[in-house]
Amino acid sequence: MLFVAYEGTQYEGFQRQKERPTIQYALERAIQCVTREKEVVVYGAGRTDAGVHARKQVVHFHTNITVPIERWCLAINAYLPRDIVVWKAYEAVPGFHARRSKHYKTYEYTVCNALTPDPMLRNQQWHIVKPLDTEAMHQALQHLVGEHDFTSFCSIHSSVQTRVRRLIQCAVRATPSGYAPCGGRWVQISLTGNGFLYNMVRIIVGTLIQVGHHHKNPDDIKYILETRSREHAGPTAPPHGLMLWDIVYVGQSFDEYETQNAF
Amino acid sequence: MLFVAYEGTQYEGFQRQKERPTIQYALERAIQCVTREKEVVVYGAGRTDAGVHARKQVVHFHTNITVPIERWCLAINAYLPRDIVVWKAYEAVPGFHARRSKHYKTYEYTVCNALTPDPMLRNQQWHIVKPLDTEAMHQALQHLVGEHDFTSFCSIHSSVQTRVRRLIQCAVRATPSGYAPCGGRWVQISLTGNGFLYNMVRIIVGTLIQVGHHHKNPDDIKYILETRSREHAGPTAPPHGLMLWDIVYVGQSFDEYETQNAF
Repeated sequence: MLFVAYEGTQYEGFQRQKERPTIQYALERAIQCVTREKEVVVYGAGRTDAGVHARKQVVHFHTNITVPIERWCLAINAYLPRDIVVWKAYEAVPGFHARRSKHYKTYEYTVCNALTPDPMLRNQQWHIVKPLDTEAMHQALQHLVGEHDFTSFCSIHSSVQTRVRRLIQCAVRATPSGYAPCGGRWVQISLTGNGFLYNMVRIIVGTLIQVGHHHKNPDDIKYILETRSREHAGPTAPPHGLMLWDIVYVGQSFDEYETQNAF
Repeated sequence: MLFVAYEGTQYEGFQRQKERPTIQYALERAIQCVTREKEVVVYGAGRTDAGVHARKQVVHFHTNITVPIERWCLAINAYLPRDIVVWKAYEAVPGFHARRSKHYKTYEYTVCNALTPDPMLRNQQWHIVKPLDTEAMHQALQHLVGEHDFTSFCSIHSSVQTRVRRLIQCAVRATPSGYAPCGGRWVQISLTGNGFLYNMVRIIVGTLIQVGHHHKNPDDIKYILETRSREHAGPTAPPHGLMLWDIVYVGQSFDEYETQNAF
């Protein structure tokens, strides 16, 4: 089992695709270079979209070779491009599956709310000039906490059977004005839940931005949720502001990396 | 007068060069697109090297056209690539010169002190695996505060007449362990002074890293300074960890952007 961080800008998302660069393919190739095994399949906890980043993606794979556990990171990194880094390796407990084992994921979406964007973070923040009412956004977001059918916040191209998911913690936080390197401030939208539908975080963010601009009321979110209809929610926010921040498995205890916030 | 931020990775530094991309050239081209004047010359406060970034570079230029001051940023940004952003514009007081008017610059150098680098900040941090003694580094750095001949910390390719400069504030700070997204921590070296020689910050950083690894004692810095000989200092740190952080002009009062730290 590996903890993987990546800047997703150059990739067509996590999942392997024919003849297009993906995180999964890059990892499988790198691991194969280490193990020299014929086939390696990497299973990821979350299938991040093209352009989406990860601070902590969890993946697992099976191998018959024995390498001391502390050597795996540097061995695999030697064969990875610079925008993908394996930063922890563990021997998984029997039966562990990165996607199927019960876990909670945290996604963070960052908006640069300023007149001009920050060139250093241009691929990791959605730049929005018009000031956002983050109080209203936070209030709106609280309507989504709990177990709900999130059909309204799911891409119509999704083919999953049930669209019921449970969000356990959601927050909108903002730095003080002037904090962002080019003036303005950073607004961070954080969602923790037991599962996320296709485009779910990005549609929630797109809707919250409408609330932040007073084009929707915070309580509208409640009705949007109840209609179970994608057309009532806002547009899908762009991928580059999104980061898979953390994954915590229920009932597993590794030397857990502490979740820390940038501000 | 403009405040400019840029990610320097794709550029051969600030200063105009024949047939190579530089920040100065990009700015002059963009301003020309706005003003339609035959020639525009941009003067920058600091000539950052290839790969070095700026949060706040200050430049000035002369123009005969009148554009409301609040429109300049967006007008120029419309013609700039995404890794250069103009984030403030002021009408300069008569006689103002970005480089010649008396000012203090602050440079920040960031080290990712962790087993693995952070892929998100791979072009903005120097990755060093071996743990650093930041206390010793901070202690060493204090020997450089004040007015000194910095010949020992200046590239032998420099042709300036005097190598006396004054550093007014220097610090080495570190985040708690585990703060960096891939574990480990960030170490930030900050220098404020009235002028910097060619490669001065990078040679100081390279020497401090030797202190942080106990290959030199903090007090050695004092003697290195006194020898006025480049060969006694450490190697030149790579450019990509360096950022021109702030510039404050003496006796000028703009609506000054508050210097804030990331941690």
